[in-house]
Amino acid sequence: MSNAYEELKPFLERAQAFQTAKILFEWDNETLAPRMAEPNTTKVVGTLSGEYFSVVTDRRVKELVKRCQKEEGLTEVERAVVRELAEEIEKLECIPPKEYREFAELTARSTGIWARARKDNDFDSFAPILKEIVEYTKKFASYRAGEGQKLYDVMLDDFEKGFDTETLDRFFGTLKEQLVPFLKKLTDSGVEIDNRFLTGDYKKEDQEAAGRFFAEYVGFDFDRGVMAVSAHPFTTNLHNKDVRITTSYNDHVDDSLFSVIHESGHGIYELGIPDELTQTLVGQGTSMGMHESQSRFFENIIGRNEAFWVPVYGKLQERFPKQLGHIAVEQFVKAINKVEPSLIRTQADELTYSLHVLIRYEIEKMLIGEDLPVEKLPKIWADKYEEYLGVRPENVSDGVLQDIHWSQGSFGYFPSYALGSAFGAQLYMYMRKKMDFEGLLRKGDIRTIREFLRENIHQYGKLKTSRQILKDITGEDFNPQYYIDYLVEKYGKLYGI
Amino acid sequence: MSNAYEELKPFLERAQAFQTAKILFEWDNETLAPRMAEPNTTKVVGTLSGEYFSVVTDRRVKELVKRCQKEEGLTEVERAVVRELAEEIEKLECIPPKEYREFAELTARSTGIWARARKDNDFDSFAPILKEIVEYTKKFASYRAGEGQKLYDVMLDDFEKGFDTETLDRFFGTLKEQLVPFLKKLTDSGVEIDNRFLTGDYKKEDQEAAGRFFAEYVGFDFDRGVMAVSAHPFTTNLHNKDVRITTSYNDHVDDSLFSVIHESGHGIYELGIPDELTQTLVGQGTSMGMHESQSRFFENIIGRNEAFWVPVYGKLQERFPKQLGHIAVEQFVKAINKVEPSLIRTQADELTYSLHVLIRYEIEKMLIGEDLPVEKLPKIWADKYEEYLGVRPENVSDGVLQDIHWSQGSFGYFPSYALGSAFGAQLYMYMRKKMDFEGLLRKGDIRTIREFLRENIHQYGKLKTSRQILKDITGEDFNPQYYIDYLVEKYGKLYGI
Repeated sequence: MSNAYEELKPFLERAQAFQTAKILFEWDNETLAPRMAEPNTTKVVGTLSGEYFSVVTDRRVKELVKRCQKEEGLTEVERAVVRELAEEIEKLECIPPKEYREFAELTARSTGIWARARKDNDFDSFAPILKEIVEYTKKFASYRAGEGQKLYDVMLDDFEKGFDTETLDRFFGTLKEQLVPFLKKLTDSGVEIDNRFLTGDYKKEDQEAAGRFFAEYVGFDFDRGVMAVSAHPFTTNLHNKDVRITTSYNDHVDDSLFSVIHESGHGIYELGIPDELTQTLVGQGTSMGMHESQSRFFENIIGRNEAFWVPVYGKLQERFPKQLGHIAVEQFVKAINKVEPSLIRTQADELTYSLHVLIRYEIEKMLIGEDLPVEKLPKIWADKYEEYLGVRPENVSDGVLQDIHWSQGSFGYFPSYALGSAFGAQLYMYMRKKMDFEGLLRKGDIRTIREFLRENIHQYGKLKTSRQILKDITGEDFNPQYYIDYLVEKYGKLYGI
Repeated sequence: MSNAYEELKPFLERAQAFQTAKILFEWDNETLAPRMAEPNTTKVVGTLSGEYFSVVTDRRVKELVKRCQKEEGLTEVERAVVRELAEEIEKLECIPPKEYREFAELTARSTGIWARARKDNDFDSFAPILKEIVEYTKKFASYRAGEGQKLYDVMLDDFEKGFDTETLDRFFGTLKEQLVPFLKKLTDSGVEIDNRFLTGDYKKEDQEAAGRFFAEYVGFDFDRGVMAVSAHPFTTNLHNKDVRITTSYNDHVDDSLFSVIHESGHGIYELGIPDELTQTLVGQGTSMGMHESQSRFFENIIGRNEAFWVPVYGKLQERFPKQLGHIAVEQFVKAINKVEPSLIRTQADELTYSLHVLIRYEIEKMLIGEDLPVEKLPKIWADKYEEYLGVRPENVSDGVLQDIHWSQGSFGYFPSYALGSAFGAQLYMYMRKKMDFEGLLRKGDIRTIREFLRENIHQYGKLKTSRQILKDITGEDFNPQYYIDYLVEKYGKLYGI
């Protein structure tokens, strides 16, 4: 037993409590809080952020961390907590407390401003605060940047350790090189999939009931979780007994359905964190990329798999007899996998999805590395959509304002989405060799698949990096080729090309 | 400007942030949190309570309070904040930090246990934790009790300054003496009011829509407030731009309707706190009694007033055409005022309501002052209901488990309900002389009445006590006779006696 670690514990508990309170305020802000609450609530959140900052950077904490780093007898978890804490101190210490607090208050306000701007289709009302956020984010990255390190690389590293612009340029390069010709071949094939029946009078209450059913079916535990509505679907967690997902409803039934399965994937990751790790600094998913690998695994590799629907499509038909009663399961599966270059990332099909991410990646590089003025975003966004996807947003709500991330100061996050898909595909291609994956789905046995993920990924929290996890499971380093192979196989079959 | 007060501000801000976070966790716990979240969340709430305790009882805070008390140049609000803070320090300092924290964790758990016990009709599963809560509450009161002061008097004073067992024995004595014979006369009158149409297939969604309409109609501002569902209706507020009410739904439409108007009354009080006071120690309603005076004013004096329904009964009929389309407004008003001794306090008519409170008052005196074992509660409760109201609960869910208060450690709270009704009646009898009260209601002008309350009560927060407020408005000290007169006049007319 380490004395220094024992002394550290009360500080860790306080830091944890402030973080958890902040998370609850964020959740509440996105799902429930009244329109005018913001300025007053922002003060509270700002104070809590300040407290978190104070406790983590407390002189005594720093001394104890140093002692812990030298001491023998720490458990593996304790060592990992100390490592995370040391990193967090380093990250926070570069930032003057006043600026840290200002930024917390800024982002507490900005998500509300973004939501209204999106609703009102008014980029100008969001631009000034976005500009401030970009400035803060760059300033904070500059405090931490190593000699000659790009600011954007500092941000990328926060979301996925060991992945920088160079690696990602290569990753996205590979995707472009192989997927763009494949997509062309596919759209030129003349195969037309009818998915019009997915749009229509799908009542909100029925979509919600269906969402709850499928969340539970894939393994989201409502005894330890809740589901609510927000502008942009997201997952959050207070600890491993309180994990929360949101969705939103429109007249496309597949939007809410697959966003619920997607968020359930995130949720199941957090629900799989063991009691020993929850409420510690290593009690969360290891990285954004690995998190997305799980959400997209559930959404696409499981949820858009024909085998998945064999045992449960009837349930969906029962819920929507008028809309789906006459649609065969094969037709439904084709429809939910229809490839169609479109404007909204979260509604994109699995094949064109990475192009949406590519656009954001390129724009972030410009915003952070090339001082692109935020005022130019709507046009650049639209131009890139036209260039890569052949579609041009007619308004900013369907364009540059569609995602919440930038309003939260999350630059460098988007690439994780594409990386996550690639991680997931690598896992799937491996798992297929070890188990009758589609056979399990056909039997309605999601549990065996989920348990594999829990045992090999979820239970480790932040004890392993994404790369380690991939290597320990598949015996191989990260290899994006599996992603290409998976997509080409799946869509080649679906489109008969 | 006071230097000491300036130095005090950051401490006050921190205390405020911890309190607000705790309030949000409580709200979340009652309205949304998943079933199994409790043990982990309790740790977080316990830590936040500890932080609140630490900051309020910080040595520097105590020095600054002393300096502020001596300094000239503090504004009226600042002086009041210092006074409240000094009282809070005194209250907290008697309690060892460890016990304070344990108690916070205990009550964070206990409301969940109460809710399940009530649902399962199982008093035994609640008794052990209730016993612990009673012990803590008594211990805490004993730390603060003056020479020869009763423990229950210490608790009563927390909710309503200057009201002790002696005063309340007299108050409830007066009520018993005058109301019991009047109630007898009324029930012997042979007048039968039919209210069966208030029970039936009232859909939850329609009740919710009606609730929202009437909340807004009486002045609850949904730009600064929200409404949700919980086991026991309550109101809470983070600040004057975020005030939250709850209700619950069953097949009695009047239950949800009047609980919403009741909670709206609480909410309107908190929404009436000015910006200058919100997020300070004096930025809440002045006492539980005055709070109840407002909620019961809206519920009964406004909401069950025949004049109130003249302009809006049609709206309710439109919402429930099958159930109310054939019911005349006069019949409806009689039904919502039907006197009927019953089991559930929150559903009690205005006349028998104070007897429900009397029972709790007598039991609390026994629990706190006479060491009544909690195991005996179900029987004593049932016996008293039989004695005073002539009805006996057949199960504990409709008996001793019906209220949340004891699970939160709120002993001494209940008497405020009866006091509040009496405060409200005194205010009403005065207002009637100054304005055409019923005329305003008939015109749908709630605003004039609400503005009177805001200007004379709400805007002062804790700057004045209940007694001062009553005196400043009516020119008289608290006088329970108005309550009797109001009830006798109203029910005499309704029952033609």
